[in-house]
Amino acid sequence: MAVNLHFSPVIAVAGVELVTLSAGIKSDNTPDLVVAKLTKKATTAAVFTQSAFAAAPVTLCRKHMSANAGQVQALLINSGNANAGTGDAGLAMALGHCEALAAELSIPVHSVLPFSTGVIGQLLPDDTMKQGIADAATALADNRCSSTSHWQNAATGIMTTDTQPKITSEQVSVDDAMVTITGMAKGAGMIQPNMATMLSYVFTDAAVKTDHLDQLLRDAVGVSFNSITVDSDTSTNDSLVLIATGEGPTLDPEHPQWNAFKASITQVCLELAQGIIRDAEGVTKFITVTIIGGRDVAECKNVGYAIANSPLVKTAMFASDANVGRLLMAIGKADVDALDASLVTVSLGDVIAFEKAGIAPGYTEERGAAVMANDEIVVTVDLARGDSSASIYTSDLSHDYVSINADYRS
Amino acid sequence: MAVNLHFSPVIAVAGVELVTLSAGIKSDNTPDLVVAKLTKKATTAAVFTQSAFAAAPVTLCRKHMSANAGQVQALLINSGNANAGTGDAGLAMALGHCEALAAELSIPVHSVLPFSTGVIGQLLPDDTMKQGIADAATALADNRCSSTSHWQNAATGIMTTDTQPKITSEQVSVDDAMVTITGMAKGAGMIQPNMATMLSYVFTDAAVKTDHLDQLLRDAVGVSFNSITVDSDTSTNDSLVLIATGEGPTLDPEHPQWNAFKASITQVCLELAQGIIRDAEGVTKFITVTIIGGRDVAECKNVGYAIANSPLVKTAMFASDANVGRLLMAIGKADVDALDASLVTVSLGDVIAFEKAGIAPGYTEERGAAVMANDEIVVTVDLARGDSSASIYTSDLSHDYVSINADYRS
Repeated sequence: MAVNLHFSPVIAVAGVELVTLSAGIKSDNTPDLVVAKLTKKATTAAVFTQSAFAAAPVTLCRKHMSANAGQVQALLINSGNANAGTGDAGLAMALGHCEALAAELSIPVHSVLPFSTGVIGQLLPDDTMKQGIADAATALADNRCSSTSHWQNAATGIMTTDTQPKITSEQVSVDDAMVTITGMAKGAGMIQPNMATMLSYVFTDAAVKTDHLDQLLRDAVGVSFNSITVDSDTSTNDSLVLIATGEGPTLDPEHPQWNAFKASITQVCLELAQGIIRDAEGVTKFITVTIIGGRDVAECKNVGYAIANSPLVKTAMFASDANVGRLLMAIGKADVDALDASLVTVSLGDVIAFEKAGIAPGYTEERGAAVMANDEIVVTVDLARGDSSASIYTSDLSHDYVSINADYRS
Repeated sequence: MAVNLHFSPVIAVAGVELVTLSAGIKSDNTPDLVVAKLTKKATTAAVFTQSAFAAAPVTLCRKHMSANAGQVQALLINSGNANAGTGDAGLAMALGHCEALAAELSIPVHSVLPFSTGVIGQLLPDDTMKQGIADAATALADNRCSSTSHWQNAATGIMTTDTQPKITSEQVSVDDAMVTITGMAKGAGMIQPNMATMLSYVFTDAAVKTDHLDQLLRDAVGVSFNSITVDSDTSTNDSLVLIATGEGPTLDPEHPQWNAFKASITQVCLELAQGIIRDAEGVTKFITVTIIGGRDVAECKNVGYAIANSPLVKTAMFASDANVGRLLMAIGKADVDALDASLVTVSLGDVIAFEKAGIAPGYTEERGAAVMANDEIVVTVDLARGDSSASIYTSDLSHDYVSINADYRS
């Protein structure tokens, strides 16, 4: 049951066609194959998992991105099987699927980026994938595949344990035209991305050079996908792709609307990243852990993740227990050089709970409990040793989390 | 429900008297106060939590240890309240309790070490503690408090969410006499000790100089208490104390039986540390994660902890799911410089599941499932890049873990 998961209405981005099929990779006949066809002038930037066990499609994406200079013309995405831990056979299969799609669309094979999500350690069903690719190519040839329902279907087709699709849009006025940004994401577990989350695709119709797009993506990911955690676990398949189709106005860092554009890209990434937490496995609370007064962002994130990943904090959140002691425990174990605990202030919502090495004057269990009763909880920690800050977004640890992950073979 | 928790019969250590009372710190009238009185010639070594929010008794222990040159004459231990996050008031109270016990026993205040475990962020009930201390002193004056039942009671008196007391003994033959080593520990959650576990006390009747005792303790803790994790959370109160009463033979590193003595001390620490995991909150499986072929012990421990702390691995263990993919995920996210994933071998029990970047030839789900059906599971990972190894011991993540920590205010 997702916590307050709402998005802006979806706006289709010109220069993108999307087909979504139930190819039969998942056993339950739900959508599991998405093909995105991009206009030839599109530019693309991407970031991937830092896992030493990066999946076959991630390895192939990296190879294709270094060969294509950001000129991507198709995305091939399947859910239900991660094609990870599958060795040379998995890599050969992913390449074969890219070649099949490239042949169907008459484009170079390195302009196809493959993505997989689902069970780790099993080979993809090769014939099923190839039939799906042929069917998708037929659909793209026969129909216009650019309505908002095509976008909604694609966001559904990339889901695994997600309970709801995650897709949102923003618009920015540029040179008397509107630039549209629409992004989608999937992921509900194995979520503490290290560079990017499970799978996310952000599209804009602006025309942006590849190197500018790349920098934009790296700045946006730091405060969004690289600031969330469900379970501290980093996926083998994390991939985030930003595509500018070039059908709309041209933008670069010198343009007066660049910062507004950048803010909108960041907003889409943040809403999708937070959406992943709102729909996290077993979630009953959406928790924002904000660390202020740090020496740098890195130590703020260390403290934020120490709190957000603590099973004892997460079970207390599930119980709506204003357990300040467990917050202190988590701050105390975080990797912060020479922290002076006597200066630390901890607040639940607007209520100061702990300061000057002791329970704050005026704090009562009742005041803490009133904050914890909500399904959106903000924990603020002031380290009082600098001017840096960071926010980490996380979910609680519930019985449903255990049930989902004891039942589901990821 | 603990997993295969058995210990050797308890043997009392000469030079130690123990009183255990239900003083009323816990609300359920179970034992919550333990006083250990040591012979004057005893030597003591101790290690404590590295938490920035170290509890008041830990702060005081450190101060007393630096003042007493290892000459400790009494331990004052309460369960039910951790006296952590209690600021100057908590520190003053802990000192007051040490002073009260020192006065009762006519010993210097810095020869008393205080320990607390239980709820964080609440002040101890001062009068209750002082009455308990007076009652304990009366019992020590009136009776011999050195039978094995006194030892058993003490191991029970330090418990919080433990379901069973953890106490064990070893003996070593030295110079035609027997040296006895008896240790006790408590702890079932907030367990990834950083220097020592929640509370543990190991006693021997050997005579050992303080500096030798200190080195012995540091060597033993690395492979025992500093190799376990229930939930990745480091307590504010972790304390491990090794006491040599000097009632038996004298030992030093030149003695031919020193290594046998050291091995027995290490064995007691390892059995207690593993005992904490066997009795971990919600445990249904005892899991040994052994990493071999590492460049150094530190990277082996990093990989071991990445597996042992992964909620996805732990829920798969709870489900008896031979989920090799989640093991690969955890290895992939571990902090290991330039790991070549294609060389890594992963085994479940004696069954090789993954090698050469793919599922091992001959591996089947049935063979993996047969291993996972047991309540003791060994996961072995060969990094194939060096000669170092390490084992980490952990529990699974069950519904009971969530229930216990959603209900219990630690």
